[in-house]
Amino acid sequence: MYNFTFEIPTRIHFGQGQLKRLRELKESGSEVLLVYGGGSIKRSGLYDDVLKILREAGLGVFELSGVEPNPRIESVRKGVRLCRENGIDMVLAVGGGSVIDCAKVTAAGAKYDGDAWDLVIDPSKITAALPVYAVLTIAATGSEMDSFAVISDLSRNEKWGTGSPLFTPKMSILDPSYTFSVSRRQTAAGTADIMSHTFENYFTTEEGFLQARFCEAVLKTCIHYGPVALKDPENYEARANLMWASSWAINGTLNAGCGVNWCVHPMEHELSAFYDITHGQGLAILTPHWMEYVLSADTVDKFAEYGVNVWDLDPKADKWLNAREAIERTRRFFKDALEIPMTLREVGITTQEKFEIMAEKAAAGCEGCYVPLKKEDIVKIYQAAF
Amino acid sequence: MYNFTFEIPTRIHFGQGQLKRLRELKESGSEVLLVYGGGSIKRSGLYDDVLKILREAGLGVFELSGVEPNPRIESVRKGVRLCRENGIDMVLAVGGGSVIDCAKVTAAGAKYDGDAWDLVIDPSKITAALPVYAVLTIAATGSEMDSFAVISDLSRNEKWGTGSPLFTPKMSILDPSYTFSVSRRQTAAGTADIMSHTFENYFTTEEGFLQARFCEAVLKTCIHYGPVALKDPENYEARANLMWASSWAINGTLNAGCGVNWCVHPMEHELSAFYDITHGQGLAILTPHWMEYVLSADTVDKFAEYGVNVWDLDPKADKWLNAREAIERTRRFFKDALEIPMTLREVGITTQEKFEIMAEKAAAGCEGCYVPLKKEDIVKIYQAAF
Repeated sequence: MYNFTFEIPTRIHFGQGQLKRLRELKESGSEVLLVYGGGSIKRSGLYDDVLKILREAGLGVFELSGVEPNPRIESVRKGVRLCRENGIDMVLAVGGGSVIDCAKVTAAGAKYDGDAWDLVIDPSKITAALPVYAVLTIAATGSEMDSFAVISDLSRNEKWGTGSPLFTPKMSILDPSYTFSVSRRQTAAGTADIMSHTFENYFTTEEGFLQARFCEAVLKTCIHYGPVALKDPENYEARANLMWASSWAINGTLNAGCGVNWCVHPMEHELSAFYDITHGQGLAILTPHWMEYVLSADTVDKFAEYGVNVWDLDPKADKWLNAREAIERTRRFFKDALEIPMTLREVGITTQEKFEIMAEKAAAGCEGCYVPLKKEDIVKIYQAAF
Repeated sequence: MYNFTFEIPTRIHFGQGQLKRLRELKESGSEVLLVYGGGSIKRSGLYDDVLKILREAGLGVFELSGVEPNPRIESVRKGVRLCRENGIDMVLAVGGGSVIDCAKVTAAGAKYDGDAWDLVIDPSKITAALPVYAVLTIAATGSEMDSFAVISDLSRNEKWGTGSPLFTPKMSILDPSYTFSVSRRQTAAGTADIMSHTFENYFTTEEGFLQARFCEAVLKTCIHYGPVALKDPENYEARANLMWASSWAINGTLNAGCGVNWCVHPMEHELSAFYDITHGQGLAILTPHWMEYVLSADTVDKFAEYGVNVWDLDPKADKWLNAREAIERTRRFFKDALEIPMTLREVGITTQEKFEIMAEKAAAGCEGCYVPLKKEDIVKIYQAAF
C-alpha cells in the first residue's frame, strides 16, 4: 500500500425528498449560477422545484442551460461570463456528470484571468474556484463526489480530464427517484461507466486488499442492480444502489493507497472527442478487448481473482480458464444484460481511418498503467473493438 | 435504503513517515493539549518525535498522560482543567481508541460549563468542542475517523458511549508501522473489535446491498490479515490493511442508509463497566453466542448469506447448515486463529452474580436492534458465554 492522503469534503444528502436541503446554499452567499442541460429537468418538474426552494431561501438565480453530453468548452466560457457579469457566489449543477463537470470548470474559470481551456489542459492553473453544489439526476460519472471534470473542444477533437480538490462539490443531493426516468440506454451506459471506474481502480500493480474487496462490492452492486433498473425503472433499491455506487467508484476510496494511471478512459476519450459517442458505451465496448489484450502470465492471477470474487467462478478451476471466463462474462453482461451495442461500428464509428491519430493521443495517458500501452497496442484494441 | 446524510470531515494521512504532517496543527491555533496513555509511546520514541515536530512548528504543548484502557471520566476532568488553565486551542491524541475517546470528550468538556460526565450521558449537551487530532497506534476502535467516544465511571460501574459530529477528528495520522509493536493479545482484540463494529452494521433489518458488500470487504480483510499480523507483527501490508479497516468499520459508510441500533456493544459495555475487561475480548466472547441466540427463521437467510459471502460456504447447501457453520467459523476464528479466550471465566468474570444487573442496564441499549433483546435474553447470552 502506498502512502496517501484521504479526504472527502462533500456532504451528501441521500434519499427521496432531500431537495429541500438546497436551502443550505445560503452558507456560500446570495447569487447562484444554476447549470443544467436540456429540457428533461423542466419536463420532470425538478427545475421548478429547485427554483422555488432557491427563491424561498432568498437566493438570486442566474442560468446556464443547454450543457451538452460530453460538455463543451463553449458552455464553460458562457458560464464564466455569467459569473463575472453577475457577481455569482456559487455554482449549482442540476443534472448528470456532464452538467456537473461543466459547473466545476465554470466555477474555477470564474476565478481565473485567462481562458478556461487553460484549466482543462493544465490543472495546476486551478488555484481558486467558487463553491460547487450538485443535484444528481443520473448514476454514472461520480462527479457529484469527486474532484474531476472532463471537457471537450470538438473544434479541435480534444477531450481532456482535469481535476482539483477545489472542484469537489461542497454538498450534493442524491435522490434516486430522479433517476426513475433515465432511459434504458442511459441507465446501461451509466452502469458501464461506474463499472469502468471501478475496473480502472481494481486492476492495479499495487496491492490493496481492502480496496480490492471494496471494488468487488461496487462491481457486484452494478451486476446485481443494473439489469433490475433496466427491467423495472422505478425500483427504488436498484436506483439507490446504482446511484450510491456511482459516487463510491470514484470518490477516492477504491484507489487510496493503490491507484495507478487509468487506461481504458484515455482510449475512450479519443472516441468521444472524434465521434462524440456516449462515454459509457465506448467504455463498455473497449473494456473486454482491453482485458483480453492485457491478459498475460503477469496478469492472469488478478483476472482469475476477479472471476472468482465477482463472477463466483470456481476457485479450484484453472486460473487461465477463470480469467478468460471472467472476461467473457464481462462482455456478455454488457451485451446481454445491459443491451449495450458492443462494436464501434454499431455506435457510428464506421471507418478505421482515425485509429492511428486517436491511438497516438490516447497513448500519452496510458503510461504508468496496470499494463502500459503504446500507440500500436491501442490501435490493435480499437481494431478488435471495431 | 433509508434517507441519510453522509459526511466524513476527517483528513487522513496514511503511511510511513506521515508524522511530519503534525505541522498542520498550526491551522487551529498555537496551544496543544497532548493526550496519551502509558509509557509505550515513550519507549518507542514516538513521544519524542511528536514533541520535536510540534515544537519546530512553534506550538506550545501541555500534557495529559496516563489515560487508561476503558478511559475514565477522571482523566477527562483532568484534561478539561488543563485546557481551561492554559488557553488550549486543540487536543492531540497519540494512542489508541481509549486515548482518542478521552481527547474527544476533553475537547468538548473544555467548552462546556458543567461537569464533563454530563456530555457522556447526554450527547445533546455537546454544542462546542476544541478541534481534535489523532496519531493512531493501534487498529481497533475506529475512533480516529468517527464521531463517537466511550467513557467509564468505574466508581459507579458506568460505561457509556456518546457522540457528536464535533468529536470527529479534523485530521488523523495513520502510520501502520506504529502498530508493529502491538502485542499479540491486543492485535487480536483489536481485530475482533473491528469485526464487531462491522457485524453491528451488517446484521440489520434494512436492506443496503452495496453497504452489505462493503461490510463483507472489511470482514474478509480482518479474517485474511488478523492471523498474519499475529504471526508476523512487522508485516506492513497486514498492519496497513487492519488499520485502514478499523477506520472504515465505523466511519459512517457501512451503516449509511441501513443502520439500526447496535446490540453486542451495549452487552459488552456492561462487562467492561463492572469487570474492566478488554473490550475486544468481551466482544469476541459474546458475538458467537449472540449469533446463536438470534438465529431464527427470520434471520437465517442473512446468516447464510454471511456464510457464503464471507466464509466461502457453498451457496447450494442448506441455509440452516450454512448459517450454523458461519457462526461456528466465527467462533473458531476468534478462538483458534486469533487465540482469544472465549469464555467470561477466562477473562476473570468468575461469578454470575452481576448478570441480572448488567443485563438490565444493557437492555436499555438493545431496543431497535436487528433482533430486539430484553433483559432475560441478555442474561441467557451472558450465561451461554460464561
